[in-house]
Amino acid sequence: MTSALPAERWVEEIQDGAYGMKWRVKDVLFQGKSAFQSVEVVETVSHGRMLLIDGLLMTSERDEFVYHEMIAHVPLTLHPAPRRVLVIGGGDGGTVREALKHPTVETVVLVEIDGMVVDAARRFLPGTASALEDKRVEVRIEDGVKYMAAPGEPFDAVLVDSTDPFGAAAPLFGPAFYADVKRRLTAEGLVVAQAENPFYKLDEQRGLLRVVRGAFGSASLYNYHNLTYPGGLWSFAAASKRPRDLSVPDEARVAALQPRLRYYNAGIHRAAFALPEFMKRGLVAD
Amino acid sequence: MTSALPAERWVEEIQDGAYGMKWRVKDVLFQGKSAFQSVEVVETVSHGRMLLIDGLLMTSERDEFVYHEMIAHVPLTLHPAPRRVLVIGGGDGGTVREALKHPTVETVVLVEIDGMVVDAARRFLPGTASALEDKRVEVRIEDGVKYMAAPGEPFDAVLVDSTDPFGAAAPLFGPAFYADVKRRLTAEGLVVAQAENPFYKLDEQRGLLRVVRGAFGSASLYNYHNLTYPGGLWSFAAASKRPRDLSVPDEARVAALQPRLRYYNAGIHRAAFALPEFMKRGLVAD
Repeated sequence: MTSALPAERWVEEIQDGAYGMKWRVKDVLFQGKSAFQSVEVVETVSHGRMLLIDGLLMTSERDEFVYHEMIAHVPLTLHPAPRRVLVIGGGDGGTVREALKHPTVETVVLVEIDGMVVDAARRFLPGTASALEDKRVEVRIEDGVKYMAAPGEPFDAVLVDSTDPFGAAAPLFGPAFYADVKRRLTAEGLVVAQAENPFYKLDEQRGLLRVVRGAFGSASLYNYHNLTYPGGLWSFAAASKRPRDLSVPDEARVAALQPRLRYYNAGIHRAAFALPEFMKRGLVAD
Repeated sequence: MTSALPAERWVEEIQDGAYGMKWRVKDVLFQGKSAFQSVEVVETVSHGRMLLIDGLLMTSERDEFVYHEMIAHVPLTLHPAPRRVLVIGGGDGGTVREALKHPTVETVVLVEIDGMVVDAARRFLPGTASALEDKRVEVRIEDGVKYMAAPGEPFDAVLVDSTDPFGAAAPLFGPAFYADVKRRLTAEGLVVAQAENPFYKLDEQRGLLRVVRGAFGSASLYNYHNLTYPGGLWSFAAASKRPRDLSVPDEARVAALQPRLRYYNAGIHRAAFALPEFMKRGLVAD
């Protein structure tokens, strides 16, 4: 007469064996192992579906709009009329979806090293991946570092939507890559890259800023809130081929986009570049 | 020949049985049960000492500076010359510590309902609680709602450093309390209150704003990052007895404080009032 209740399942992401987050899982939708990494999609009780790579949470349906709006609209409202956009990584399709909201955009090339990420997203994360079926999108399953190093048509914006600076993504944080990015940008072109977080990874942020400054002469960090990444306060690095104030968007262009956005607005754009005092001090060039 | 390793101990804070955070514990320093709540202080591996009330994390040594700077310096750099400051709750002493950094401040009254919180902080959290020994500080162990309802000398700023809007702290989120706050403020006076978070508690934020607006005519939310509270993006509610733009601090006063601060600066003050689009839409008065 004992009832055998199924055990609760949780996804846990623990940092340094010392602190972490967890989410209760309703269902495991996909588990695979590619040449590069493990890829999982789970359905959670509270945050919709989540994509995990090597056990680290990449995106959740509940808050992916924040990350994807902030990586795309900050550079694309600074560029006067972006036509060609390159996304490196970002196989879930969310960054592509946001780039396509800009009416001047004619082409978005997505270069994702791991076809399993794109396949899993197409099957289980339609809210982001359905953007990949748009006629303006070209999906290439190849190494983004090699793609940048090759000759090719230039881009108005390069969005480096990468995982953390180790494993498959490590070269995306290096100087050779950023020299190539600069070469492949148009005169008004901009680059934005996932840049970790200041509470736990300030040294890594300083290192990436140094690399981007080395290529572009100057670079800035801007912040956003991530519900499901450690610490909640996360950053992007941004640089422009032509010197400009990155904190001031084209307000008319923002206003035209606004009805379709849930996090980004002109006030958030400006505010994102205001850094907490400990970040400013910790990022001083050494 | 088996070795009996001690089991790992973790503090977990789980929301709605569905998601949460956890921290590995080195040592439990204090565990008590007062007339109001359970009170614990633990030493963690990664975040220093943490104060927990009813199992919910209140403050960690690693990031308490963010919360305490943001609750204190936003109102105190808006007031032209704050002399008398009232802190309701905040028995750990961190908010008092920040208020005392303003050279015009002559008196800080701390009204904390639970003497056990103050006692535990004095023994185990000297980084915040040592401020309570300052000669300008008066510590009163009593009900903040009753204290506000009584007659007494007015204050230039009231800082409502409370737990969540249930249990002992629930009346601190009600209209009677805010009518009393307004009555006890000087003509240039301001109030700021802990106001939950927009990702998970937007309805509660709207409710608090409605209450504060009911008393003061207008009220604003401003945001900060909390490393150890769910979601990372958290808010304070602010209102002023005299209409003014709450987003513009006195830059000279901020500059004088700056060497002693780690999160707050003039850019962060202005940026904190820029709300994400989903917050703006969700907080529209109904």
